Amino acid sequence: MTQNIAFIGLGNMGGPMAKNLIKNDFNVTVYDLNSAAVAELKAAGANSADNAKSAIKDADVIISMLPNGAIVKSLYTGSNGLIDQIVNEGKDNVLIIDSSTIAADDARAVGKACEQKGIAMIDAPVSGGTAAAEAGTLTFICGGEPTHFEAAKVVLNAMGRHIFHAGASGAGQVAKICNNMLLAIHMVGTAEALNMGAQQGLDPAVMSEIMKASSGNNWSLQVYNPYPGVMPNVPSSKDYQGGFMVDLMSKDLGLSQELAAKSKSATPLGALATQLYQIHQAGGAGDKDFSSILQLLQKKES
Amino acid sequence: MTQNIAFIGLGNMGGPMAKNLIKNDFNVTVYDLNSAAVAELKAAGANSADNAKSAIKDADVIISMLPNGAIVKSLYTGSNGLIDQIVNEGKDNVLIIDSSTIAADDARAVGKACEQKGIAMIDAPVSGGTAAAEAGTLTFICGGEPTHFEAAKVVLNAMGRHIFHAGASGAGQVAKICNNMLLAIHMVGTAEALNMGAQQGLDPAVMSEIMKASSGNNWSLQVYNPYPGVMPNVPSSKDYQGGFMVDLMSKDLGLSQELAAKSKSATPLGALATQLYQIHQAGGAGDKDFSSILQLLQKKES
Amino acid sequence: MTQNIAFIGLGNMGGPMAKNLIKNDFNVTVYDLNSAAVAELKAAGANSADNAKSAIKDADVIISMLPNGAIVKSLYTGSNGLIDQIVNEGKDNVLIIDSSTIAADDARAVGKACEQKGIAMIDAPVSGGTAAAEAGTLTFICGGEPTHFEAAKVVLNAMGRHIFHAGASGAGQVAKICNNMLLAIHMVGTAEALNMGAQQGLDPAVMSEIMKASSGNNWSLQVYNPYPGVMPNVPSSKDYQGGFMVDLMSKDLGLSQELAAKSKSATPLGALATQLYQIHQAGGAGDKDFSSILQLLQKKES
Amino acid sequence: MTQNIAFIGLGNMGGPMAKNLIKNDFNVTVYDLNSAAVAELKAAGANSADNAKSAIKDADVIISMLPNGAIVKSLYTGSNGLIDQIVNEGKDNVLIIDSSTIAADDARAVGKACEQKGIAMIDAPVSGGTAAAEAGTLTFICGGEPTHFEAAKVVLNAMGRHIFHAGASGAGQVAKICNNMLLAIHMVGTAEALNMGAQQGLDPAVMSEIMKASSGNNWSLQVYNPYPGVMPNVPSSKDYQGGFMVDLMSKDLGLSQELAAKSKSATPLGALATQLYQIHQAGGAGDKDFSSILQLLQKKES
Repeated sequence: MTQNIAFIGLGNMGGPMAKNLIKNDFNVTVYDLNSAAVAELKAAGANSADNAKSAIKDADVIISMLPNGAIVKSLYTGSNGLIDQIVNEGKDNVLIIDSSTIAADDARAVGKACEQKGIAMIDAPVSGGTAAAEAGTLTFICGGEPTHFEAAKVVLNAMGRHIFHAGASGAGQVAKICNNMLLAIHMVGTAEALNMGAQQGLDPAVMSEIMKASSGNNWSLQVYNPYPGVMPNVPSSKDYQGGFMVDLMSKDLGLSQELAAKSKSATPLGALATQLYQIHQAGGAGDKDFSSILQLLQKKES
Repeated sequence: MTQNIAFIGLGNMGGPMAKNLIKNDFNVTVYDLNSAAVAELKAAGANSADNAKSAIKDADVIISMLPNGAIVKSLYTGSNGLIDQIVNEGKDNVLIIDSSTIAADDARAVGKACEQKGIAMIDAPVSGGTAAAEAGTLTFICGGEPTHFEAAKVVLNAMGRHIFHAGASGAGQVAKICNNMLLAIHMVGTAEALNMGAQQGLDPAVMSEIMKASSGNNWSLQVYNPYPGVMPNVPSSKDYQGGFMVDLMSKDLGLSQELAAKSKSATPLGALATQLYQIHQAGGAGDKDFSSILQLLQKKES
Repeated sequence: MTQNIAFIGLGNMGGPMAKNLIKNDFNVTVYDLNSAAVAELKAAGANSADNAKSAIKDADVIISMLPNGAIVKSLYTGSNGLIDQIVNEGKDNVLIIDSSTIAADDARAVGKACEQKGIAMIDAPVSGGTAAAEAGTLTFICGGEPTHFEAAKVVLNAMGRHIFHAGASGAGQVAKICNNMLLAIHMVGTAEALNMGAQQGLDPAVMSEIMKASSGNNWSLQVYNPYPGVMPNVPSSKDYQGGFMVDLMSKDLGLSQELAAKSKSATPLGALATQLYQIHQAGGAGDKDFSSILQLLQKKES
Repeated sequence: MTQNIAFIGLGNMGGPMAKNLIKNDFNVTVYDLNSAAVAELKAAGANSADNAKSAIKDADVIISMLPNGAIVKSLYTGSNGLIDQIVNEGKDNVLIIDSSTIAADDARAVGKACEQKGIAMIDAPVSGGTAAAEAGTLTFICGGEPTHFEAAKVVLNAMGRHIFHAGASGAGQVAKICNNMLLAIHMVGTAEALNMGAQQGLDPAVMSEIMKASSGNNWSLQVYNPYPGVMPNVPSSKDYQGGFMVDLMSKDLGLSQELAAKSKSATPLGALATQLYQIHQAGGAGDKDFSSILQLLQKKES
């Protein structure tokens, strides 16, 4: 039997994710404040709804992809939230999947509210960016009960390639944010190494090959080289357009430092990477790809 | 025709490297101040010499593996150095390969002194540690003339798996030190991410799998996980014994910061990693493996 | 006419502050969960109350000195809070002074709740520690309406020497937290400079004199030298006992980083100082004076 | 009897220093490669010489004020240096005062070369900038034998107000560089605090007054506020013109990190301040006053 899916939030990520569900023959009803985004999904075969409440009316699964924790909490909890509606309407067997990247504590708060009403919920933030969202090759990093995770997998497989269970409620957000902090660290580190080599006259492409084959190897070198011209089709070779914006990396790094403070974890390089992106952002680079951090280090023409 | 090789410096790295040359049927004459190290190589089939000068007497290739730039410079240059001896004895076609990790400027100074006398020389520092030295799977990162690099390859292949040409004289040292700075950065970053996850109740092994499959992926996660118990047979699972000592990583980071200062390159994460290893070393961890930086971050029992 | 003051929160700071009000002939009614603290104040001449509500019954001025923002908010706001009580009882002309160190946003939330009910309120965090609290020489850094600030001054003068008006509601907390971040930075910096000098054989006392008379001069050098033996009667000369605990400095630095994130302000040294205190704390130094950060830098005997 | 002084190096600092010696009735002979600088001193009453050797011919005291250690070493040591000349000419009782800011090891090398020939020498770097050089109010921070220090004081008093003896040979350089590292740290920290306060709507002038009266107090706040408009006549109020250039602070921070590496001293904030000035310099701010580091933190108009 075809599952009915309500999809809330059709931004750069949510839009293509919902399309992949349609391609995989799910029955998808969408909602977003942005009517153009809704229209695009309708053209792709989705049903549309006037608000979140009517979107979830017949839903077996609710997926949300929203910009921050305050919006996610207001969608689900509170006297006007979807959780109360689900309870009031006596809906059984609904599964909530929140794919937004938000603070672990916010995810846990929603998770707990669901648990208290007997509603299945997992946090399932993604890794991979818009290209992976379109290609259906996202990585989902999930937190919640094992049975809920297994139930979600059927749906997530339509949008992603790797589906991980990180642990209990909130663990998906923790793992996602730890991963992105580490990503920022090795991206800055890779930029530092390539820039210093270039300052000494070495060819960044040659340097990159050497480090990829050595202990400096990391994801940035493999698929997202920050030095212009080393790799085709990556943001650094397109004037740092497209990709994952500095503003978004700054948001994730902010979440990492909130988490570090709350869990009393020392993250010295994570904290410094956060500051460097803050400085980069203050310099006006907020809408460039995050690999443009190389430009903060480079000597400017005067 | 069998090549004669003089090998100067039989430490933890030099010893096994020289043995691999013998296994590959080179005719090897060794010298080291440490007579026990010399005796071990003699037992393995090497000739021995009483000093560097007699060691190179019939050498076609001279390889040195020494602890720092001052020692390398004093071996080769100056009125008592090997370069003058080579010139005085009218030796032709000698190739010098220095595999020590030293400042690029020191490598360039020796390289220039050789060039002025028409002697072939490359800097060829290694990556991979004692295990790779024993297995003959080192990575050599070379700087110097292309023809000298090609000539060296025949010999280096007996000790290593990847042989890279990074650029002109000194470029091997630059690339090696950039690589090791980046290694330190992602090792510290990986420790920060795993520690924060663990503080939030996540399983470091699960976290590691997730980040390896995501954009946090790096060499530390792949083969050298710093969290005890995640991987068998790595230093973190053996109480941080063996591997690459904090003292040695501190030395390499020191070289990276010298290079950064000389080339006016900003390396903020590199500088902070240097400081963290300095603090770790001051705390008494100098002879532990460098992945023990995790312990600096972890909450101590009181 | 004698003013009636309700004083809520009799910890290490609140206790001596309340005593100074009594000494200055204010009529003081106190409340704290800790009955021993209440008893001590009663012995000093205070009236006591069974709860905050009865403590403020006849109060002209309410002063609170509490450990964190959640407690402050729950004291004043919400359906059971003092603000509602003041409104319900029709009390006029009450002035609220909150001297707790809390997030600026929490202070602003309480300030706004007061403003909406026409109640005068200022945030008035202090600088100076327990010694100054006892001596009545605290610095008060206040935020709120100028007229409320003027009204508060009469009372604050009984407990402090310097009374500053930093700006609108919340500005007291902002200025306090900026000050303490800067304090942490120059304390760590002073420790770094003295330690490096000592490593080079210089006498820390001589170094301190020189830097005090030069551009390195700062409050730490003047009255709170972190190097043992340079100054008598400071924590560093008493095995880092007493003074301002690492745990408390960590709390304030945490507030500074929250503020930095919220206001999108780059604070690279502030962030690193936060991390260093986090590492120091993880190492077990939480209950030492914050000048003990010197010990994190020093070479340990092994 | 009037002392004869040879003064080598008439830059922005050396020029006004030599003039103050003339004003104090010393008999001064100057030398510099820059003939315009020499002409200016001649007009002020100095004798001139064609080279350093003839400048010191009748000198009782030799003062040098040069840009780096390599130049200082080449002036004094080596087969063509002033030390050999002094020995060859049998000059007795010459006192050498080097006021250049150079690496402590370079100062010690010259000091040792002097000691071996029985020549009195002190390192005496200055603090205070060009204004203090002109006003004769420099701070001299000296290293060397106590008797040599006492002998130097007579001369130094003509150019400075505070004359400190930091310890043995090289100690002047160590103390100077520790002081300047601490200066950089509290300047950056002050900029961070004022910028964050301003982002929150506080008046930087009010913030400065509060922190000056509190534990955040430091030299920057007292006499060199980095926020434009808070103090008249400081570089920040003159578009960061004049004062102590970013390039020079970067040089001193570079010396501090060399010293830290050599003495195995952890200087985490010093290292980060070094990096921030490096980034600021790469951005084109090398010739602005060092308090312009505030601009690196501030949000740029786009």
